[in-house]
Amino acid sequence: MLPSHKITMLGTGLIGLFYTMTLHGQRSRDRVRRVYSRSEDRAKAFAEKWDIPRWSTDLAEAVNDPETDVVVVGLPNHLHEQAVRLAAEAGKAILCTKPLGRTAAEAKRILDLVESTGVFAGYLEDLVYTPKTLKALQAIENGAIGDVLWARSRETHSGPHSDWFWDLDQAGGGAIVDLGCHCIEIIRNFIGKDIRPVEVMCWADTLVHPIDAEDNGIGLIRFANGAIGQFEVSWSFRGGMDLRDEVAGTEGTIWLNHFLRTGFEMFTSGGGGYVAEKADQETGWLFPVGDEVSELGYTDMFTDMFEAIDAGREPMETFYDGYVVNAIIDACYRSAQSKQWEPVELDVWRGATAVDQIKGFKQDYDGHQLVKRERMPDGTLKLILKNKETGEITQRFVEEG
Amino acid sequence: MLPSHKITMLGTGLIGLFYTMTLHGQRSRDRVRRVYSRSEDRAKAFAEKWDIPRWSTDLAEAVNDPETDVVVVGLPNHLHEQAVRLAAEAGKAILCTKPLGRTAAEAKRILDLVESTGVFAGYLEDLVYTPKTLKALQAIENGAIGDVLWARSRETHSGPHSDWFWDLDQAGGGAIVDLGCHCIEIIRNFIGKDIRPVEVMCWADTLVHPIDAEDNGIGLIRFANGAIGQFEVSWSFRGGMDLRDEVAGTEGTIWLNHFLRTGFEMFTSGGGGYVAEKADQETGWLFPVGDEVSELGYTDMFTDMFEAIDAGREPMETFYDGYVVNAIIDACYRSAQSKQWEPVELDVWRGATAVDQIKGFKQDYDGHQLVKRERMPDGTLKLILKNKETGEITQRFVEEG
Amino acid sequence: MLPSHKITMLGTGLIGLFYTMTLHGQRSRDRVRRVYSRSEDRAKAFAEKWDIPRWSTDLAEAVNDPETDVVVVGLPNHLHEQAVRLAAEAGKAILCTKPLGRTAAEAKRILDLVESTGVFAGYLEDLVYTPKTLKALQAIENGAIGDVLWARSRETHSGPHSDWFWDLDQAGGGAIVDLGCHCIEIIRNFIGKDIRPVEVMCWADTLVHPIDAEDNGIGLIRFANGAIGQFEVSWSFRGGMDLRDEVAGTEGTIWLNHFLRTGFEMFTSGGGGYVAEKADQETGWLFPVGDEVSELGYTDMFTDMFEAIDAGREPMETFYDGYVVNAIIDACYRSAQSKQWEPVELDVWRGATAVDQIKGFKQDYDGHQLVKRERMPDGTLKLILKNKETGEITQRFVEEG
Amino acid sequence: MLPSHKITMLGTGLIGLFYTMTLHGQRSRDRVRRVYSRSEDRAKAFAEKWDIPRWSTDLAEAVNDPETDVVVVGLPNHLHEQAVRLAAEAGKAILCTKPLGRTAAEAKRILDLVESTGVFAGYLEDLVYTPKTLKALQAIENGAIGDVLWARSRETHSGPHSDWFWDLDQAGGGAIVDLGCHCIEIIRNFIGKDIRPVEVMCWADTLVHPIDAEDNGIGLIRFANGAIGQFEVSWSFRGGMDLRDEVAGTEGTIWLNHFLRTGFEMFTSGGGGYVAEKADQETGWLFPVGDEVSELGYTDMFTDMFEAIDAGREPMETFYDGYVVNAIIDACYRSAQSKQWEPVELDVWRGATAVDQIKGFKQDYDGHQLVKRERMPDGTLKLILKNKETGEITQRFVEEG
Repeated sequence: MLPSHKITMLGTGLIGLFYTMTLHGQRSRDRVRRVYSRSEDRAKAFAEKWDIPRWSTDLAEAVNDPETDVVVVGLPNHLHEQAVRLAAEAGKAILCTKPLGRTAAEAKRILDLVESTGVFAGYLEDLVYTPKTLKALQAIENGAIGDVLWARSRETHSGPHSDWFWDLDQAGGGAIVDLGCHCIEIIRNFIGKDIRPVEVMCWADTLVHPIDAEDNGIGLIRFANGAIGQFEVSWSFRGGMDLRDEVAGTEGTIWLNHFLRTGFEMFTSGGGGYVAEKADQETGWLFPVGDEVSELGYTDMFTDMFEAIDAGREPMETFYDGYVVNAIIDACYRSAQSKQWEPVELDVWRGATAVDQIKGFKQDYDGHQLVKRERMPDGTLKLILKNKETGEITQRFVEEG
Repeated sequence: MLPSHKITMLGTGLIGLFYTMTLHGQRSRDRVRRVYSRSEDRAKAFAEKWDIPRWSTDLAEAVNDPETDVVVVGLPNHLHEQAVRLAAEAGKAILCTKPLGRTAAEAKRILDLVESTGVFAGYLEDLVYTPKTLKALQAIENGAIGDVLWARSRETHSGPHSDWFWDLDQAGGGAIVDLGCHCIEIIRNFIGKDIRPVEVMCWADTLVHPIDAEDNGIGLIRFANGAIGQFEVSWSFRGGMDLRDEVAGTEGTIWLNHFLRTGFEMFTSGGGGYVAEKADQETGWLFPVGDEVSELGYTDMFTDMFEAIDAGREPMETFYDGYVVNAIIDACYRSAQSKQWEPVELDVWRGATAVDQIKGFKQDYDGHQLVKRERMPDGTLKLILKNKETGEITQRFVEEG
Repeated sequence: MLPSHKITMLGTGLIGLFYTMTLHGQRSRDRVRRVYSRSEDRAKAFAEKWDIPRWSTDLAEAVNDPETDVVVVGLPNHLHEQAVRLAAEAGKAILCTKPLGRTAAEAKRILDLVESTGVFAGYLEDLVYTPKTLKALQAIENGAIGDVLWARSRETHSGPHSDWFWDLDQAGGGAIVDLGCHCIEIIRNFIGKDIRPVEVMCWADTLVHPIDAEDNGIGLIRFANGAIGQFEVSWSFRGGMDLRDEVAGTEGTIWLNHFLRTGFEMFTSGGGGYVAEKADQETGWLFPVGDEVSELGYTDMFTDMFEAIDAGREPMETFYDGYVVNAIIDACYRSAQSKQWEPVELDVWRGATAVDQIKGFKQDYDGHQLVKRERMPDGTLKLILKNKETGEITQRFVEEG
Repeated sequence: MLPSHKITMLGTGLIGLFYTMTLHGQRSRDRVRRVYSRSEDRAKAFAEKWDIPRWSTDLAEAVNDPETDVVVVGLPNHLHEQAVRLAAEAGKAILCTKPLGRTAAEAKRILDLVESTGVFAGYLEDLVYTPKTLKALQAIENGAIGDVLWARSRETHSGPHSDWFWDLDQAGGGAIVDLGCHCIEIIRNFIGKDIRPVEVMCWADTLVHPIDAEDNGIGLIRFANGAIGQFEVSWSFRGGMDLRDEVAGTEGTIWLNHFLRTGFEMFTSGGGGYVAEKADQETGWLFPVGDEVSELGYTDMFTDMFEAIDAGREPMETFYDGYVVNAIIDACYRSAQSKQWEPVELDVWRGATAVDQIKGFKQDYDGHQLVKRERMPDGTLKLILKNKETGEITQRFVEEG
């Protein structure tokens, strides 16, 4: 028969809700069988709503539920390490929400926990699993846009739903930890997870909210082959949730819009009910998303995770990826302080160790290096040429292309 | 345990492929266990590719597979009736692709077959199940756009993949039967399936291809409450597959774009592999769709169908709906000939029998009927008023809104 | 020196305002020197605002201003004939707003007035002069989309600003006369002004407002070469002003959006001032237009008109075009009553008298007619073929394209 | 009579062409009366094409043409200083293309030249004059998006047309000098030209072309009030010319797209002629722009310049602005070398000297600082609150909004 899984869900916040909606969605054969919350009320209500037979307010009890074989960690950041330790000790497969840790050091301990016990471990970075992203990654692998030169990932909204996100100690940071972890892993996927991130430059500031953590941040990540990643995060964006990725390659361009412009446009003078996560208004022009859990990647993410468990292979996103993301975030915070580029410090690098610089536009013409070719309005072809010896740059019009 | 289903799939063309991709997709617990094709080669190849244990070139054998409890009809239009008869006699649940029949008479016989035997019957009109459409229908039910006045559904591409579509006899028509059946049912869902379609006006012509059937068609459908449906279909559209719906209500507007502008934009100088169903080019700006089977509604459609079977309820789309669609198409073809509005002839009408005309903008102001109110650039409010006795229309500027 | 013009502006409503903004805009060398309004207050205020030296409440006095050489008619529809007569008698160049008349008969009298006196006469159909439309027409002339099969023009908003529009007698109709005249002339330009409009089918209804005229209408126009025009007009659209054109050709497609999606998107929680003509809201996502008078075609329209006067040539839009539009509108109203296709009655037809039907996809392959060719995901080429003798349709896979 | 101007045009490259198209466009009353090119052939051809009575290959002769009162500098960067000196000595109004100089030092000398002689001087930064930008700036001034927090300006294409751009010495830099100067001044306009740019962080690299200058660059500019500007420039972008601005404010958001998505979409299988500046393809989906010289701001720019001359006022963009832009670019190049934030060095600062930091979200609730308020799906209001003394962050659900 088709293999299926019984799950312990840790956490009943927004992310626990999205995960359970996905796991119980469509014709899925997997089911949450125990749920944990720090609050008895929330645990009970959640179990009832989602038809889950057992609930706990005791973390160890939930993890050690004898029926379940998979533990999903959907807890605040400062509880990830404890939860993973319990699940690893129980020998269960572990799926942990993003970010893996609050710091690279914490993430490394979490990684070591699962690797030393040998349990399956998947990193729940949903946004690299959106159907658009998966298809875009495939197109890039097929060569559709040539070598990737630059990837921008932007995730901004008006701020998270739960109190703990806003607390620097529990969360480990602000918008960069919360949203930047998505962007960084998206960028790594587009540029190539095998390409080492070398150094970062980051700006962070608290522009709008009365909090200690940053509510806005921008970062650049330089990779070993010369490619550049660029992330933009904000908790003060107005107009909904802006999730966009842009990728520039030597042969093409990809633009993905995951939320505000996906082909669903509605003008209303009021009354349409719940529109979408973090929509900033209820009347006027709205831009809902069809199936949120699919568009945000949750569906394909859990499919990959469970198929990986069943097949005894690694999932697309591992705890090691989570560790790399934390290491980049650490470098970002250092850079925001030092105001200069900071190296990405990785105790372990499992990707390629020698990569070529991106191969650009290398063509010769009549003994010159070709700088550019362009078709003019009158049909002639204009060439910009560089003399290989003198370096002088000239232009020439030729009849045929 | 979670209920699951074993399926006989009739047909291995594009639609059988999409259906099977969906049924075996993500973490689904349902599986195709026997496949039928008229060609042994295609049957074998399909079974192998999709890990289906048994195949047939004999329709009755496939339908009567002892393990399967559901028969999915994905055959050319002229074979629907025969397939449904066999499946109804076998007492199995039947899911039939669109259109139900080639004519209303054929559809009515098919409807009678399943109703007389009492088997479960679902009409596989996927495009009313797209996540965007489902959410839009919910918003309309919530009152987000007031009363629906007009719904436009447009489905155009460069023509179908298989030979039988182009044959008037096997298909029962051209672009209107092939694509209009989608549009008509989308329109019915937006305007309200309870509202009777009264009459239609239709233009059809063969503008581009050397065929007997129409390759272009436009139709208007007037409903009992005054609302208007408008469909546009074409087999000669250039630029990909244009699937758009627009809905105008007294309080709002909805625009859905299912294919060419869904937030995925890619420029390529070549090499990205298979882009999307019916894309018209392989280089330049392309507009792929993330997860086609989800965006086209197949996922939610089969979920509804199997949940309906499990719960002993009707699915969202029934064979009766398929019959109504065929009756509207019949009226369209009559109108295209007669060049006048033609009544929609329904032997059985199961919706509302007395509906009010759409309630428009009915407000009074200072003893007049209010025709329009508008805020002017200088902040004053301009009222267009109608004298209730004389009918005279005047305008008035007032200070406050 | 550069030739310039002195203008009498008849009318101070929204259209007079837009015209004067354009005429006095940028570095224009033409100027309005006298303005007429039925109301002394409005005439004075308008003259002061736009630095116009003279104003009148007497139509003849305004037309006969000794300094002006051009009369612009921006009056309600029922006053066009009188104004044109006065201007023609004065021997001045006449530019008349749309529609030319309330009926084809009235338009014909207006046409005869200017042709018998020989004065210059331009029809101010601004929407065929939008920069996008002009460039699209040029692309079509260059063959970019092959033969035009279908043109859709849609103009909908929440209803006009002034009282007289809502009065059937003064306006001569409702949304079809007000907005359909734009759509019809846009369609004619895309399909070819030389191609005779043969017959129309039209639906019209009063769905929302307490008025005698239609507030919604849809029409189909069949042209002599088989091409189809489709217009959609409404005074009950919510969400702003929807001005879109779509054109389908044998080799391509054109989509124009003149207002709601032109690359300017703004989310505001309030306070941004006047947004755009007929915007339906002041907060949330708004879609303003950059330079309205340019985007709506006024700038290029007046440039063409004055250049035509200076060069002694016809403008792009003539009173004859206005007459054809009125003849099509007349047929629309007849069709809305008769519920069947109605012929377009033209006393005079100045276009082509013998046109070929659109040439479609006419290719042969191996003794068959080629119905369709399509590249499959596996790289093979699939051909749909028609046997020239039997008419049988088959498919064939070939290796090379 | 209406004042008009006679112009000497220096340069016949693409920018001289666009300037002349604009100056002679629509019903303009100004005219180019002498044109200068280093090449006699190009000077003659240009004069003939644009009906310009006189041409020169001698710069001084062209500047000193006795009929002209305005000199437009459309020359390569390294010739700006010489041309401005000649024009200033001739006492003529000077309009200089972007960038003003190759370095801030050069720009400062150019600024001093015109200020010491007192001639009118306008900086031809067209992209702050696009109709969309002008309207967006007005909306920001009206308070539509609150305080501006961040402005992104992106200008990328496949590289410039003429040889000298690619030569580091003549151009003074690569993509940052060529395109970044636009972005920087756009950013300054959105954030406020009165707010001092304090420091910059910049990445630059030569990824694709065989040249000495950078072909890609990204920069961050921190302003005195905490706002952040972000520019992205590239000479290796594929897919056309990507000109987009995004602005985030405390109360709203603005997105401008000047080129690739402006409401004009065309699919063609070939043959539509010249599409747009720097379009990267000739078939498939194309995104032309209606009136390029209007959309790119040239029309409104020259209108402002000439109106400023006529009114004896400063234009919107002055040589001082050009100098500030060069100072920011200088800091960018230093930062790209030093890999840290570099101060913007301005010998003269004419804006505000004491500005407040951006005022964010400062509200109290029940003795706490309000961090966030959000409407939940069930209609309750969720507040995130910060204890003013302990700094602890908690959440609370309240019934009413």
